[in-house]
Amino acid sequence: MRIDGRSNKELRPIKITTDFNKYAEGSVLIEFGDTKVICTASIEDRVPPFLKGQGKGWINAEYSMLPRATQTRNQREAAKGKLSGRTMEIQRLIGRSLRSVVNLKALGERTITLDCDVIQADGGTRTTSISGAFVATALAINKFFKGKELPQFPLTDYLASVSVGIVNDKALLDLNYREDSTAKVDMNVVMTGHGKFVELQGTGEDAPFSKEEFTELVDLAESGIQTIIQLQKDALGDISKKIGV
Amino acid sequence: MRIDGRSNKELRPIKITTDFNKYAEGSVLIEFGDTKVICTASIEDRVPPFLKGQGKGWINAEYSMLPRATQTRNQREAAKGKLSGRTMEIQRLIGRSLRSVVNLKALGERTITLDCDVIQADGGTRTTSISGAFVATALAINKFFKGKELPQFPLTDYLASVSVGIVNDKALLDLNYREDSTAKVDMNVVMTGHGKFVELQGTGEDAPFSKEEFTELVDLAESGIQTIIQLQKDALGDISKKIGV
Amino acid sequence: MRIDGRSNKELRPIKITTDFNKYAEGSVLIEFGDTKVICTASIEDRVPPFLKGQGKGWINAEYSMLPRATQTRNQREAAKGKLSGRTMEIQRLIGRSLRSVVNLKALGERTITLDCDVIQADGGTRTTSISGAFVATALAINKFFKGKELPQFPLTDYLASVSVGIVNDKALLDLNYREDSTAKVDMNVVMTGHGKFVELQGTGEDAPFSKEEFTELVDLAESGIQTIIQLQKDALGDISKKIGV
Amino acid sequence: MRIDGRSNKELRPIKITTDFNKYAEGSVLIEFGDTKVICTASIEDRVPPFLKGQGKGWINAEYSMLPRATQTRNQREAAKGKLSGRTMEIQRLIGRSLRSVVNLKALGERTITLDCDVIQADGGTRTTSISGAFVATALAINKFFKGKELPQFPLTDYLASVSVGIVNDKALLDLNYREDSTAKVDMNVVMTGHGKFVELQGTGEDAPFSKEEFTELVDLAESGIQTIIQLQKDALGDISKKIGV
Amino acid sequence: MRIDGRSNKELRPIKITTDFNKYAEGSVLIEFGDTKVICTASIEDRVPPFLKGQGKGWINAEYSMLPRATQTRNQREAAKGKLSGRTMEIQRLIGRSLRSVVNLKALGERTITLDCDVIQADGGTRTTSISGAFVATALAINKFFKGKELPQFPLTDYLASVSVGIVNDKALLDLNYREDSTAKVDMNVVMTGHGKFVELQGTGEDAPFSKEEFTELVDLAESGIQTIIQLQKDALGDISKKIGV
Amino acid sequence: MRIDGRSNKELRPIKITTDFNKYAEGSVLIEFGDTKVICTASIEDRVPPFLKGQGKGWINAEYSMLPRATQTRNQREAAKGKLSGRTMEIQRLIGRSLRSVVNLKALGERTITLDCDVIQADGGTRTTSISGAFVATALAINKFFKGKELPQFPLTDYLASVSVGIVNDKALLDLNYREDSTAKVDMNVVMTGHGKFVELQGTGEDAPFSKEEFTELVDLAESGIQTIIQLQKDALGDISKKIGV
Repeated sequence: MRIDGRSNKELRPIKITTDFNKYAEGSVLIEFGDTKVICTASIEDRVPPFLKGQGKGWINAEYSMLPRATQTRNQREAAKGKLSGRTMEIQRLIGRSLRSVVNLKALGERTITLDCDVIQADGGTRTTSISGAFVATALAINKFFKGKELPQFPLTDYLASVSVGIVNDKALLDLNYREDSTAKVDMNVVMTGHGKFVELQGTGEDAPFSKEEFTELVDLAESGIQTIIQLQKDALGDISKKIGV
Repeated sequence: MRIDGRSNKELRPIKITTDFNKYAEGSVLIEFGDTKVICTASIEDRVPPFLKGQGKGWINAEYSMLPRATQTRNQREAAKGKLSGRTMEIQRLIGRSLRSVVNLKALGERTITLDCDVIQADGGTRTTSISGAFVATALAINKFFKGKELPQFPLTDYLASVSVGIVNDKALLDLNYREDSTAKVDMNVVMTGHGKFVELQGTGEDAPFSKEEFTELVDLAESGIQTIIQLQKDALGDISKKIGV
Repeated sequence: MRIDGRSNKELRPIKITTDFNKYAEGSVLIEFGDTKVICTASIEDRVPPFLKGQGKGWINAEYSMLPRATQTRNQREAAKGKLSGRTMEIQRLIGRSLRSVVNLKALGERTITLDCDVIQADGGTRTTSISGAFVATALAINKFFKGKELPQFPLTDYLASVSVGIVNDKALLDLNYREDSTAKVDMNVVMTGHGKFVELQGTGEDAPFSKEEFTELVDLAESGIQTIIQLQKDALGDISKKIGV
Repeated sequence: MRIDGRSNKELRPIKITTDFNKYAEGSVLIEFGDTKVICTASIEDRVPPFLKGQGKGWINAEYSMLPRATQTRNQREAAKGKLSGRTMEIQRLIGRSLRSVVNLKALGERTITLDCDVIQADGGTRTTSISGAFVATALAINKFFKGKELPQFPLTDYLASVSVGIVNDKALLDLNYREDSTAKVDMNVVMTGHGKFVELQGTGEDAPFSKEEFTELVDLAESGIQTIIQLQKDALGDISKKIGV
Repeated sequence: MRIDGRSNKELRPIKITTDFNKYAEGSVLIEFGDTKVICTASIEDRVPPFLKGQGKGWINAEYSMLPRATQTRNQREAAKGKLSGRTMEIQRLIGRSLRSVVNLKALGERTITLDCDVIQADGGTRTTSISGAFVATALAINKFFKGKELPQFPLTDYLASVSVGIVNDKALLDLNYREDSTAKVDMNVVMTGHGKFVELQGTGEDAPFSKEEFTELVDLAESGIQTIIQLQKDALGDISKKIGV
Repeated sequence: MRIDGRSNKELRPIKITTDFNKYAEGSVLIEFGDTKVICTASIEDRVPPFLKGQGKGWINAEYSMLPRATQTRNQREAAKGKLSGRTMEIQRLIGRSLRSVVNLKALGERTITLDCDVIQADGGTRTTSISGAFVATALAINKFFKGKELPQFPLTDYLASVSVGIVNDKALLDLNYREDSTAKVDMNVVMTGHGKFVELQGTGEDAPFSKEEFTELVDLAESGIQTIIQLQKDALGDISKKIGV
């Protein structure tokens, strides 16, 4: 049994609170166990310079942790005056992932900015962020769609993400912080509702891994992601019927 | 009547949720109406260089708003690479205010860092931050005190803060954002449980104010602060008996 | 008697040298005892982006100390690559104060930038800066007014500032550095020629203060400011007749 | 046939020039077709703070492109004053990859810094950097080993990297820039001499990919990496016998 | 005899490899002994703001050293987040020097950016950069000239640079690093093909120098520069006939 | 005749006010016509890391212009967050120049920081700064010498600087701003009291110059520097007898 009592193939309790923020076009508080992330989706009528005049939109993400999201306090990046490599890597990953399920033409010349702010971190903050950002995006898009501002619902598929890893020679789903920090191999997987991969990032810094281990981990992630997508559907209610249509 | 139905001398509904964060020595989620701030107090066994070897501690504060705490999205200061003047002014104010009620000698060579992260902003974020930071500080100090790490309870008094202002020629208590943005005069007041002033900052950029107006505003703030301190006592329960003893 | 021989209610010797700088539209060297500040007012035909096309102007201030303005050398902010919180706080205060007595509509789409450079610091640099910046602003505006570039003289009132504080239980006017560094309470007051408050900032970090102490300090500041405004009038000569008309 | 005449499973011509730099402990110029990278390995007798006194070493990487390595000139990151997210992501990847085949204990309290400077870029600069950095590391370590400064040869395995991707529905090995910019899926694979994975990063921003496609790509990468490792062995000559022993 | 066997008036072996870079409009690898610099000239259809609409072009230079160009590794300026004073001084010098032999009117509203990247440094990197940048500029301009994009060949003269200095009381031509670091006086000279001075920078930090010493050094530099210009002509072949016509 | 009525070989009126600053170890206000610079010399008991434990001192310079030192306002470098290349070049030049006449061993492990703050600029700010910094240095050193803190007077010679240039084909001494901006050739010369050169920087960006022109300019500078050194001696009075002894 795992330190928090789960079986190897079990997700942590997941909770998605929609409309957590009063002002954002779309927002959720998403919790994977003790990992808690506020995801807001803000839609603005502008696109980055490289897209001007092309009739299509853009999706951008920013990620941050509150200084005391973790066991010991971290220095604020705003105080340091620059983003860490880790932060940049994560926000690029979130943006790329979300763009893969949005029809940017159907979005028109608009930018959706996804802000993922981790208020408590117990492992898997980037995968939790992606899973929450998807719901925030759907809520924001729905608000515009209902306002007749979009000709077509621009979300082409569901999207969720989870981490998997090998700890003490066992493949585990949805690592918490203590598991993550002792994992020999860890992998973040982003998949669509149709079971296709958007991102696969496996790293074996402490111990390279074999093709068999890799396959086992991917299968484990796939099963977890199906469950998460079901929870996203529950959270979105009727909106879920417009996605991928 | 005010836009949100309050009388001129009425505070917004205030809610203080203690131990909102799993890791911090002390933490609260404090809400003044739609203004919501997470305050965490982190205690570390170090002091800034200018205090080394003097046998006394320090209190420092950092303040930030999530990008979508406001009606339109603000750029992150971490992305801009520097803190705004407004942020610096606020975090200096929070730190100074809290230091006024902590016996830094009794704290020993420790630093308490107060992180005030505004997750939703509807006016009064700096005064809400101070009122919440006080409770987080009390919780953190109590944790150390119970662990026998402090010879004496180092909190010397209660501390709370509220904003007041003149809107349409009326003195109002606890301005929300729409009131604040049309106020001719606005003032932030920080007071102790014994009714003494720690900070008084009044500004009449749009219309200079008279001594009479000033006195009326200060009295209004005083009454509001007494109510807030009572709510802090309720939130702290038994701990409140150790303060100022 | 005070360390420099003054009575408690006495200002330091004040000297205002107008047109200290050959190029600026308005300039002074202002001295409060050993505190010496060069204030220049530069008028430019542009406004910040948020004011474009609104037919009104803006006033902005920047503040800096030469590295050896103080007893020990301070590192240059240009070398550190960022402004300190203290600097930002002060320049925001100067800008806000000056805007309160300028009719921005009458100024037209122009920006006045006030540069306050402290060449020697012996306490009260921010209040000295405000008092000097007012004279520099009046000189600059007069230059434009005489050139028929302004329909109306846009200065609506006089403006001056002074510090007051409680040192050894006595209320003192116009603190020098040694007094300032031992003051229990210190307050900066900005007032108009009509005796109204523009800014009131009192802080009792080391000892909270009562309403009575507060009132005494404000009265003391008021008397000092009246004297300073008289000296500003003397420095401005005939120009002073155009102010507030 | 591909635009440069290669078959789908064919690497570009690869050239490894050892000892390209006169001063570095180890260095190569590595060329994959028109992609040219100078890799230097610098060994210093210090470790980062988090490793002090633990008797083990560290490996760190930095990556940069000359401004005109590309078809149009890029702004220098030194001139912009910060590293891009892409640069940070790549240098973290190179460092992590190399650490996986170095016995950091056997290295002692030393840091190897790998500088990968792209002087011409035609796709695959990060994988080329990793493949070249391995050879530079081996040369640098050998220099110390021969100098009797290391008890044991600390390289535990070979390491190389290559990119693969799906372009026009075909799986291609070692993409050049034009292929890379039209790929629907692209993947970077880092493997050891024993055929284990160190990093697997697949991304399908434009089109999510299936498990079958993924498997085909990984197999293709594996075959390419075996060839690259053989070329590394040729370049290292006798040194290659000490690796992994 | 000098440490590398040269006579006092002898240059190091010089090698100019043209078209070293596949993409740049003009490029060379220039070597003065062990000092090796890649110089690329990029032509873009834009001018800096201060030149907009004046019908003339601009020349700008950037200079950088790879971290391990030197005997011990230097920190990257991109990682430090700012350029050193030395780098700024050198790139300003290169830009100024090249502008002196280009007819900016004949260039039209275009900017030539010269990137001088030192891949190995053994003294004289700034003078080597200037000598190489001239050839890269000529190649780039020729490419545009042949493309009928320029009415007239805008290079008005040849340009080269060399260092001279006094080491052990002897005047030496073209100092290498060891000579440079023990020189009492060192001077960088930039001259045209017609033997006129563009820049003369002599510094005697360790020992001020006399007018006689100065004259001897200048004469020595002049003879070296004539040789370098002959090598530039050889490298440019037929293009050399268009210069200064 | 020149625009300000001087002959070609005439300096502007020079005024050196010693002890201009109350706190600095040494200070002057130096004026060359309308160019006015405050130079302070601060002595601190520390040396930069690269000199620790070597028993010798260091001299460092910083240079800045007040924003309105010039005809139109310049942005503050502190606000921009970085020093310009011009500023860096100038402060490196001032430091290097002063170090050439100070016996750093005799100074002991101390650092003299020279702050040159231009309060009004009409050409020649760098040469005026050097000439003023010399006097400030002498005053600061004398203060320490009188306090018996130095075994020997560490100033080995006098030092002054002036600009010269060719304007309308005439060689002019001590250019003002209008002359400087139309000069074809300009040169800054730093010389010692014994007539030796410390720095010679000539630049002919707009028109390369011949050896004859160069020699004429150097001779002109030499005569001007002799006059300046005489004025420095007058300003220093008795202290001047200790220099170079």
